[in-house]
Amino acid sequence: MAFELYYWNGIQGRGEFVRLALEEAGAVYIDVTRESGPGRGTGAMMRLMRSSSESHIPFAPPLLKDGELIISHVANILFYLGPKLNLAPKDEGLRYVLNGLQLTITDFVAEVHDTHHPIATSLYYEDQKEEAKARSAEFIRERVPKFLGYFERVLQQNPKGAKHILGDALTYADLSLFQIIEGLNYAFPKAMDGYEEKYPALSALHDAVAARPNIAGYLKSERRIPFNEDGIFRYYPELDRAA
Amino acid sequence: MAFELYYWNGIQGRGEFVRLALEEAGAVYIDVTRESGPGRGTGAMMRLMRSSSESHIPFAPPLLKDGELIISHVANILFYLGPKLNLAPKDEGLRYVLNGLQLTITDFVAEVHDTHHPIATSLYYEDQKEEAKARSAEFIRERVPKFLGYFERVLQQNPKGAKHILGDALTYADLSLFQIIEGLNYAFPKAMDGYEEKYPALSALHDAVAARPNIAGYLKSERRIPFNEDGIFRYYPELDRAA
Repeated sequence: MAFELYYWNGIQGRGEFVRLALEEAGAVYIDVTRESGPGRGTGAMMRLMRSSSESHIPFAPPLLKDGELIISHVANILFYLGPKLNLAPKDEGLRYVLNGLQLTITDFVAEVHDTHHPIATSLYYEDQKEEAKARSAEFIRERVPKFLGYFERVLQQNPKGAKHILGDALTYADLSLFQIIEGLNYAFPKAMDGYEEKYPALSALHDAVAARPNIAGYLKSERRIPFNEDGIFRYYPELDRAA
Repeated sequence: MAFELYYWNGIQGRGEFVRLALEEAGAVYIDVTRESGPGRGTGAMMRLMRSSSESHIPFAPPLLKDGELIISHVANILFYLGPKLNLAPKDEGLRYVLNGLQLTITDFVAEVHDTHHPIATSLYYEDQKEEAKARSAEFIRERVPKFLGYFERVLQQNPKGAKHILGDALTYADLSLFQIIEGLNYAFPKAMDGYEEKYPALSALHDAVAARPNIAGYLKSERRIPFNEDGIFRYYPELDRAA
């Protein structure tokens, strides 16, 4: 049976980290809110979220439905899918190490979101623009180097070589790191200018993922939603500045 | 061999969610930074974090060391410990459901942190006090009801009864929800006034966890660090207001 991915229609957002894993593996999946018909569309997702009979209600999308099982949160979905898609180590202990890396990516993504929404998700960006400028300045000055520097160091210290974030084979966290770099390049082009020299292993990983046949095919397809200002990574020129 | 927990000395913080699970289970563990001697103390944690030879470097505490395996992030540590401490369901699918609940708690904890640090973790609270007031107001108005309302609903819709967040037995997420309520009561007493009527199942769960012998003993012990203004849950009267 095909995996069912439920996520907000019209944005890459957090769902994109799951899509990249499914696409790389060539898995059969239904991007539920982007299709129409019975059990499809955003209405189907909202019915699932609001169900008063479902015993395992998720807090927020993305969700993965595999048969009767509903799994929420990106890192959790990837932890579940990893072995099935051959994107996780065979060693069980190392799967927790991989999950730790993915959860650091999760934290970074939440900080990216808060650059444009530092006060409240419920308010418009325009209503918190000054605070967004202050938070983005700190983000570029402190947080980007801290997170990217960390991932660069993990790559460099990988005893199996700097081509992968863990071990000697592709994992879902490599795909997520590609997406992090793509998103930062979109949202903060000035801040990211010259990142290839500062983070050579991360830059090489990004390029290697982009060149993988299934990923390259996906990125050119209509299934890849373009970045836009409703997603996590948003390009607001007033928030971007040279690092 | 005893589990080794590494976390910042002097605060409950994120480490407390792990401590509660270890304490409830009566597990043997070393709270590394709170002890002295070889391989103990904050220095030992910093050496591990900064190691240039370690192949699996964590981004931030808390960390759990089990033999040679180093696991980072609260939800990941609890996912790993759950079956070992008999605080997770036997069914593997349900363990992912439990992890999803724990990751929602993780997100909520990050939002609690940002009530006093909305602009930058690297700046003092005093340097972002006005923004903290704005964020806390939204937090009390929008986010507390959203998160607590969600957990109340999950409890109420549990087909095995409202005593536990998942299934019919205690899990680590029940312990974490106790800590969430404890922390909110400490940090936002005005906002939480009367919460028992709004969230009866959550309130009953909190009280039931507090009464468990191992937890009750732990809370009275010196191992339980008091809440303070260096942790995640901080009491700043100017951020608190009636809901």
